[in-house]
Amino acid sequence: MKPDNIFADIPDNLETEIFERLAGGGQTSIERIVSRGQASPASGWYDQETSEWVIVLRGEARLSFEDRSSVHLREGDYINLPAHLKHRVDWTAPDRKTVWLAVHYRE
Amino acid sequence: MKPDNIFADIPDNLETEIFERLAGGGQTSIERIVSRGQASPASGWYDQETSEWVIVLRGEARLSFEDRSSVHLREGDYINLPAHLKHRVDWTAPDRKTVWLAVHYRE
Repeated sequence: MKPDNIFADIPDNLETEIFERLAGGGQTSIERIVSRGQASPASGWYDQETSEWVIVLRGEARLSFEDRSSVHLREGDYINLPAHLKHRVDWTAPDRKTVWLAVHYRE
Repeated sequence: MKPDNIFADIPDNLETEIFERLAGGGQTSIERIVSRGQASPASGWYDQETSEWVIVLRGEARLSFEDRSSVHLREGDYINLPAHLKHRVDWTAPDRKTVWLAVHYRE
């Protein structure tokens, strides 16, 4: 068995966000997301069938919610997004890569 | 909504490893583990009903397997441990805290 590294093999070209499934099965999916300056489309909310636990491992980001509240996530910050909690990514650091780990699961 | 930080609220006294569930539901459990010098009992293997995806976020550790292979995990290294893959923690850094994130799930 050989480990992989969550910070390795990140393409330099990040014109779009990169989503990669790292592991999972059944009702669980573990995913790496790499952003650089991207935000969700202004008009759009994520409205997901599954819950999502997400942590920022490098970089910085801001999420906002339908009630107009928002959270700023820095290195090590995590948050749990229950299924159907409408949210969007307002902002990610423009000058460096933001590496997220997301776990999608069913309650 | 308010984020928590994976590196916050770590007790200074780490005579034993600390396991804390951060989120989950259904067939998924997301857990923080903090170690400092601990290893599994020499005689014991973890033989788990569920699969476990684990990443070292700070510190360093070594896992070994029944076939006598072992892996050294440094910051950002992750590995997937299928259910019933017998493994043990051989070593964790004695001089600093090792912070793990583990996701237990069913395939």
